[in-house]
This record gives sequence, structure tokens and C-alpha cells, in this order.
Amino acid sequence: MPDAVTFDQHPSETLLVGKGFKLKDCDPDSTPGYSGDKVDGEMLLEELDSRLAELQEQLFAESRFGGTKRILLVLQAMDTAGKGGIVTHVMGAMNPHGVQMKSFKAPTPEEKSYDFLWRIEKEVPASGMVGVFDRSHYEDVLIHRVHRWANPEELERRYKAINEFEVRQNGAGTKIIKVMLHISKDEQKQRLLARLNEPNKLWKYSTGDLKERAFWTDYMDAYQKAFEKTSTEIAPWYVVPANKKWYARIAVQQLLLETLEGLKLQWPVPDLDVDMERDLVERS
Amino acid sequence: MPDAVTFDQHPSETLLVGKGFKLKDCDPDSTPGYSGDKVDGEMLLEELDSRLAELQEQLFAESRFGGTKRILLVLQAMDTAGKGGIVTHVMGAMNPHGVQMKSFKAPTPEEKSYDFLWRIEKEVPASGMVGVFDRSHYEDVLIHRVHRWANPEELERRYKAINEFEVRQNGAGTKIIKVMLHISKDEQKQRLLARLNEPNKLWKYSTGDLKERAFWTDYMDAYQKAFEKTSTEIAPWYVVPANKKWYARIAVQQLLLETLEGLKLQWPVPDLDVDMERDLVERS
Repeated sequence: MPDAVTFDQHPSETLLVGKGFKLKDCDPDSTPGYSGDKVDGEMLLEELDSRLAELQEQLFAESRFGGTKRILLVLQAMDTAGKGGIVTHVMGAMNPHGVQMKSFKAPTPEEKSYDFLWRIEKEVPASGMVGVFDRSHYEDVLIHRVHRWANPEELERRYKAINEFEVRQNGAGTKIIKVMLHISKDEQKQRLLARLNEPNKLWKYSTGDLKERAFWTDYMDAYQKAFEKTSTEIAPWYVVPANKKWYARIAVQQLLLETLEGLKLQWPVPDLDVDMERDLVERS
Repeated sequence: MPDAVTFDQHPSETLLVGKGFKLKDCDPDSTPGYSGDKVDGEMLLEELDSRLAELQEQLFAESRFGGTKRILLVLQAMDTAGKGGIVTHVMGAMNPHGVQMKSFKAPTPEEKSYDFLWRIEKEVPASGMVGVFDRSHYEDVLIHRVHRWANPEELERRYKAINEFEVRQNGAGTKIIKVMLHISKDEQKQRLLARLNEPNKLWKYSTGDLKERAFWTDYMDAYQKAFEKTSTEIAPWYVVPANKKWYARIAVQQLLLETLEGLKLQWPVPDLDVDMERDLVERS
């Protein structure tokens, strides 16, 4: 057990998008299930690093012996919400060999010439891997809904296709964790200003960020709709309040830990005569 | 400057495979250029993590503004030499988004139906990335030489093809760092026994490891030959003594740091009117 202040309630319960969930009732400043402060949170993050790394290694090890379990963490958020920080500070604890990172950008002309799941299918995690999607197939029901690049019938087709896709991945051994990092519109303003004010952050500032910011309410509606259509038992959404970066990180770390612990992973026991092998090594 | 004991001499000089280098004269127990002990080394590794991460972010940032610089770290070694530890403990400090990991296993039937560089070309790092090859195109002149899967003429063709390939990658902006982690045959025995004796390591033990171990001298000859043929100014080999894992890690970290520092990276300054943007954000 860590020395740091731990969660009182499981983020897998407090942050779950269940029936009747309303995004507008979720406070981006809150820290559900956690009574500690920033210092406590940072300590907890660090203390649980090694457990996370160990579980990831067990997941990987099992796959070397035929295991098909794997994780897919989907990260969605408004700009500046901290997806990058999650990747660095949470996923960074794991062995890079066992992590399959993919950032989905605006689709290329080739990608656009296929159905929207074509480019996604190619990036799903292999057995034993922890896959991370930084943006994902959900862009096709978020930005596409906001800007009306897809009509209502097409959006319905996509929600259905996403659910079927995720059921199939789950059937193949993939535990899917979908996270929306939730910041307030004012917090985004402060973070955009920080990018403009700090020389080592200026490169991250894009004039396009303001364009999407103008559609804030439409985005929140699109998220709400996506949650209603696609938060399922086998691939639930979690809304993580993210105005406090330290909280978002420990919350996502917990979601990963809980999911990995739930897999009941074991160190594989290879089918070999250990005494005989030891003898062979000694004499080699 | 770090508080920990630093290197007296640059690993890029002390570990370089230059003219007249003899692998057999390299002591796997030694710690060239470093007078500290294990505790010092572990402290140094940790202290330099953030500098390594910063340089990697600058490399990535430059590529967003047209930069074509990138790094390719090639790791080769006998089994158990610690490639995995380098990946976890050195590369682990970097943002996973900026690291392109690739483990090359025995080639698939499809891969075998092409020339040996076909599968390599597909995995070279993109602009701004730090690529890591865990094993590489060098297997085609190492294990292939040891087991005589390629005849002498074919091996000559491959050395030449490798050099041309690396010259081209370098011309496209890639700094290539080739590392052989050098352990002694006795150290490998101890590590194989450790795998057999520890339940969380047993899964890593392969009965095939002993098979390659039996060809130790042939492998050392194949490495020596590969060094002579392919340690070039634009893509040098470094032999890193690796009986002490902590030393191998700080040595590779230094090689990366020196290479990245040599790129004279800068935070990009986007072409935008910061005051005007600040005003737009404030009013948004």
C-alpha cells in the first residue's frame, strides 16, 4: 500500500458515464473520490508507477504464452486539456516496448477515401500491449457533428459502427477504457495564454485552436450525445475532471490500475524442467 | 549541472569503435570515463532524465515547423545483455509520443521474401522522432554469419548495402547511434540462472538462449567484423561495457544527450503576432 493519500472511492465508479449522466453537471475543478491535494496526488502518482509497470509487464508476459488480453485507452478532449501530460506522466511509467501509441490527426486523402474505421483498425493494440489513442474514431462523431460534415443519418451509422467495432475488439481480448479529459472554457483560456507567454510552449500554440474554441457548446453537446450512444458495459466512457492536471493524471492511472488488476494477471510458468535447464546453463 | 558524479570523459570518445578497435580488448566489467559507483550512477541517470526529455521535446517541436532532424538508436547485444533495461530506464524518460520503438524478431515468411532492408526501411524514424531498433538490420550480418545462412559474398553485399542505407538516412536528417551492449559469457550465465530462479523472470527464459550461447566466440567474431565494415563517421558504433547494468544505462543516456546537444536544437518561434493572438484569446 502506498504511503500517499489514496482514493476513497474508485474512479471506475465515480467517473463512469452511466445512465442519466449529464456532462454539464460535471465540475472540471472537482476531484471526485480524492481528498488529497496536489502534493498528495503527485506523490501517489509516483508511488504507483512501479505497480503499473509491473502489471503491464505481466500483461506482456502472458501474451508471450498465448494470452490475448490487451488494453486500449482512448483519450479525447478539447485542446490543451492535458492528453500529452497523461501520455508522459502516466504511460511513461510503462516499458515503452509494451505501449502502442497512436495520435490520430486530420485524415490524409488516402484515409478519407475509406470508411472512418479503416485507419483505426490498423492501430488497435496487439496481444499483451497497452494501446493509447490520442484522439480516435470518436473525432468522426465529434468534430464531424459540430461542423456538420456528417448528417444525422450518417452519425447514427457511425455510432452503431463504433459500438460493433468495440464489441468485436472486446471479444478478441481488448479491455477498452474511454476517457474524456474535461476542462472548463475558462481553464482553456488560461492554458492558451500560457502557451503564448512561455517560449518553450509557444510552438504548441496554433491559430486554429481559437476556431474550435468558438464551438465550445456544440462540442459539449457532441460529447454528451457520443456518451449516450457509446458508453457501454464493455467499453465505458469516463469523464475525468481535468482543470487540475495532477488529479486527471492520478484518476487515469487508477482507471488503468483497476482495469489491469481486474485481468487477474499471473507470471507465466513456462513448460520446462527448471532443474534440468539450470544444470545445462551451469555446464555451458 | 547535476549534483551526482558526472563523466570525466565523453562516452562518445571512450566507447567509440574507431580504427584498430578490438572487441576482445574491451572489458565488460569496466566503466570507461566514469569514476562513480552504482549509487552515483543511478543518481546521475535520474538527474539527467529531465534534460533528456527536454531535448527530445525540442527535437519534436522543431519537426512541427519543418525540421527534419531525428535520431536512430540501434541496440544490438547477446541475450540478457540489458537491451530491455535501456529501453525502460533510459528511453522511458522521454515522452512516448516522440519515441518510435521497434523490436525486430526473426523475419516472417513475407519479410524473408524481400531483401533484408525492406522491413527496416518501413520502421525508420519520422522527422522529430527518436527511433529505437531493438535488434536491427545487423542481425543479417551477425546471426546470418554465425550460422552461415549467408555466404561471404552475400555478407559483403550486405555490409555495403547497410553503409549506403545509413548514408542515405543520415542525409535525410537522421543521426544514427549504434550500440553494442557488451557482456561477458560468465555474466550471461549468471543472468540466465537468475531467470530460472526468479518467478517474475522465468517467462523470459527460452531454451533457445543456450543454443546461441554455444556460438559465443563466433558471435564476437561477427561483431568485430561488423564493426570493421560499418563503423563510419556518420553512423559510428559504440561498444558499451554492460556487465554493470547501471553503467550501460548512463553510458547510453550520455550518448543520446551528446548527440541531441550536438543538434543545437531551439524552441521554434512560430510566425504569429503574439500580442494580437493574446488579445484574441482574452476576448474569446
